[in-house]
Amino acid sequence: MRVRGKISVPGFLAGGISAGIKHGKDMDLAMIVCQTQAVTAGVFTTNAVKAAHVLLDMERLKRGKCQAILINSGCANACTGKRGLEDARKVSRVAARCLGIPEKLVLVASTGLIGTPLPVEKISRGIKKLVPSLSPDGLSRAARSIMTTDTFPKVVLNKTRDFSIAGIAKGAGMIHPRMATMLCFILTDALIEWEVLKSALRRSVEGSFHRISVDGDMSTNDSVIIMSSGRQPLGKRGIGYFQDSLDEVTFRLSEMIVEDAEGATKKVEIIVKGAATLLDARRVAERIAVSPLVKTAIFGEDPNWGRIMAAIGSSGVQVSQDKIDIFYDKVQVVRHGKRYGGGCEARAKRVLKSDFPRIIVNLNTGKAQLRLLTCDLTEDYIKINAAYHT
Amino acid sequence: MRVRGKISVPGFLAGGISAGIKHGKDMDLAMIVCQTQAVTAGVFTTNAVKAAHVLLDMERLKRGKCQAILINSGCANACTGKRGLEDARKVSRVAARCLGIPEKLVLVASTGLIGTPLPVEKISRGIKKLVPSLSPDGLSRAARSIMTTDTFPKVVLNKTRDFSIAGIAKGAGMIHPRMATMLCFILTDALIEWEVLKSALRRSVEGSFHRISVDGDMSTNDSVIIMSSGRQPLGKRGIGYFQDSLDEVTFRLSEMIVEDAEGATKKVEIIVKGAATLLDARRVAERIAVSPLVKTAIFGEDPNWGRIMAAIGSSGVQVSQDKIDIFYDKVQVVRHGKRYGGGCEARAKRVLKSDFPRIIVNLNTGKAQLRLLTCDLTEDYIKINAAYHT
Repeated sequence: MRVRGKISVPGFLAGGISAGIKHGKDMDLAMIVCQTQAVTAGVFTTNAVKAAHVLLDMERLKRGKCQAILINSGCANACTGKRGLEDARKVSRVAARCLGIPEKLVLVASTGLIGTPLPVEKISRGIKKLVPSLSPDGLSRAARSIMTTDTFPKVVLNKTRDFSIAGIAKGAGMIHPRMATMLCFILTDALIEWEVLKSALRRSVEGSFHRISVDGDMSTNDSVIIMSSGRQPLGKRGIGYFQDSLDEVTFRLSEMIVEDAEGATKKVEIIVKGAATLLDARRVAERIAVSPLVKTAIFGEDPNWGRIMAAIGSSGVQVSQDKIDIFYDKVQVVRHGKRYGGGCEARAKRVLKSDFPRIIVNLNTGKAQLRLLTCDLTEDYIKINAAYHT
Repeated sequence: MRVRGKISVPGFLAGGISAGIKHGKDMDLAMIVCQTQAVTAGVFTTNAVKAAHVLLDMERLKRGKCQAILINSGCANACTGKRGLEDARKVSRVAARCLGIPEKLVLVASTGLIGTPLPVEKISRGIKKLVPSLSPDGLSRAARSIMTTDTFPKVVLNKTRDFSIAGIAKGAGMIHPRMATMLCFILTDALIEWEVLKSALRRSVEGSFHRISVDGDMSTNDSVIIMSSGRQPLGKRGIGYFQDSLDEVTFRLSEMIVEDAEGATKKVEIIVKGAATLLDARRVAERIAVSPLVKTAIFGEDPNWGRIMAAIGSSGVQVSQDKIDIFYDKVQVVRHGKRYGGGCEARAKRVLKSDFPRIIVNLNTGKAQLRLLTCDLTEDYIKINAAYHT
C-alpha cells in the first residue's frame, strides 16, 4: 500500500515547496486543498501544552468543514503564546486570500522546533508561490514537505472499487500513544456525514497511531485530520467497509512511523494477552515499550527477559508473577514467571536477530489483549537527539 | 560524608569476599552481622514482580528483629519461582549455622541478572570462608562486594556525638522512585524502638531514594534495610536528631547512586514548584526525569526547553501552559509558557556545561514543591545496557 509515485484522490489538489523556513533548500511548506468544502474531522494531541495550530484547528473544526490545510515544517509554533495563535491566523488568512475562500475554512499545522515564533513573512511569500503549483498528483510533494527527522516520506493510498483514501504522515521521534508525535492528513472522496466521519477517524486512530511508541515522549503538535470531498457515495458495502479501508491506511502509516523511528534498527511488536481489562493490557504494553532497559536489550539482540518481567511488574497493573508467560515470537522463555529452560535463550536470540521481532506476554488473568508497535533504543537515537537543537 | 577508608559502627561486624558467583575474581558475597539481635526495619520494591529475597525478608521482618544480612551480587534470584525462595532459605540456613544464630534472624539480599537460579553451592562455600573474615571495619569490603554496574563503592558514615549511622548502597541503572533499583544497608548503634525505626526509615527513604531516577526502570530486588544494635541511647536531642542524621545518610547515598548512573555525564536536579499538590509536583518532575528527549538534550548541553514543556504537558497533571516558568539554574528561559528572550538560550547553554545543572519549573498554580535527582542519557548508557546480558 506504500507508494512513492504520484497519487491522487478525486476532488483534491496538493503540493509542497521550499519556503526557506528550514536551513538550505529543504521543502518545508505544504498545502492540501479540496475543490469544494470538505467534511472534515480531526484528532489532536492530549498534551496539556498545545501548539497554536492545535488550538486554532480545534476551534475551526467545530463546524466540521474545511477546504484547505496549510502545513509547515521547521517550526512547531508551540509555546509561543498569544502571538503564536495570531501568527497561525495570519498565515491562514494569506492562504484563504490566495485561494479565494473564507479564512475559517483553512486549517494550519506546524511541526519542528518548539518555542520559536512562526516565520510569517517567509510563509506568506511561500503560499503565493505554492498555490499556483498545486496539482491533483501533488500529495507526494506535500508528504516530503512535512518531514522533520523523518528519513522517508510517508504516503499511503487505498483505492477501493467504491472510493479512494490517501494519507500522508510525518513522525520519527517524540512518539507515544495519546497522541503519537506526528502529523497526518487523510483525504477521501467517499461521501460521509460529519458525525460518522468523526467517529470513524477516532476509532481508526485508536487502532493505529495510539498503538505505537518510539520513546514515550508526547508532542504538543500531534494532529490527524481527515477531509472528505464527498464525490463518491459509500456504495453497498457501507460504512463498515469504509472503516476497514481507513483502518488499513492509518495502520500502515503508523507502521511507517515506527519503521522510521529515530536511530532504530528494529521494529518491535508487543502483544499483551490475558489481561483483566484492555486498560491493563495497554498499561503493561506501554510500560514494556518505554523501558530503556528492554529497548537497549533488543538493540543488543539479547533475550534479557528479566527486564520485561521487571517492566510488567512496575506497570501499576495487578499481576500474579507466577502466572506470567513470555515468548519471543514462538520461543517461550518464561513459563509461570520462571525461566522456561531447554536452551530457550539461544533460540530467542535467533528471533531477536530479525529486524521485526515480536514479544508476546500472557498475564493469564483475563481475556483482554492489545498490540503495540515500538522499536529498539540505540546510540544513534542519542546522537540524533543530543544534537537536534543547536 | 563519603568515605573510602575503614569505618565501623559499635556492635557490628562486616566483610566481603569473592565466592565465584561473578566471572573472574570480583568480590560478590557480603555479610553484615550484629553482635546481638538488632532492631531492624526494611523498605522494599513496590514492583509486583518481586525477587525471592524480598518475599523472604518481608516475611522475616514482621518480627522487627534480625542479626545478620547475607548479600550476593552477580545473581538477582528474581523470577526463579518456588525454587528461588527455597534457595534463599538454604543460604540463610548455612549462614545461620556458621554464625550459631537462629535461621529466622538472617536476612538475604541478591542483585544481578534476573532469571538464573542462585548458585547455592558456591554461596555456601563462600559463607564458610566469609564468616571467619568478618571484622568491625569490614563495611567497605561489603560495599565493594555488592556492586554490579557500579563504578565505585557507596559508603557513608555519619558520626554524631550521641551515635553513629553508616550506610552502604549499590545501584547505577534500573533506578526510579518507588523504589529505585538498588540495595542499601544502614547500621546504627542508636537505641530505638522498632515502630519508631520503621517510620524513621520510611520517611528518610521518601526524601532520598524515592527522589532519584536514572532511567525510569524499576527493579525486582530493591531493598533498604536498617539495623540498630541499640548500644547508644538517643541522648537529649531525641528522635528528631536521629531522623536528621539518618536523612543525611540516605540522601548522600542516593546522590552517589545518581553520580554513578550508567553512562551519565551529568547529575541533574529537577525542582518543580508551584504545583497544586505534592503528587502533581512528583508527576511533573518524574515525567521530565524519564523523558529521553529531555535527557539527550541535557547530554548535548542544549537548552531545548520545548522538550521540557512537552514533558510537563504530557504528565497527566492539569497545568495552564500560560502560567509555566522554566529556569536553568538562575537563567529564565520560559515565562508564562513562552520563550523568555534576551539571549536566554546562550546563557542557559553555559549553565548546561556544568556537570550538575538544575532545572526549575514553576507551574504557578499552587504551593507544593518537590526535588528530584536524575541524570543525562548518553550513548554509553546504550552501550552498557545493550551488552549487559550476553
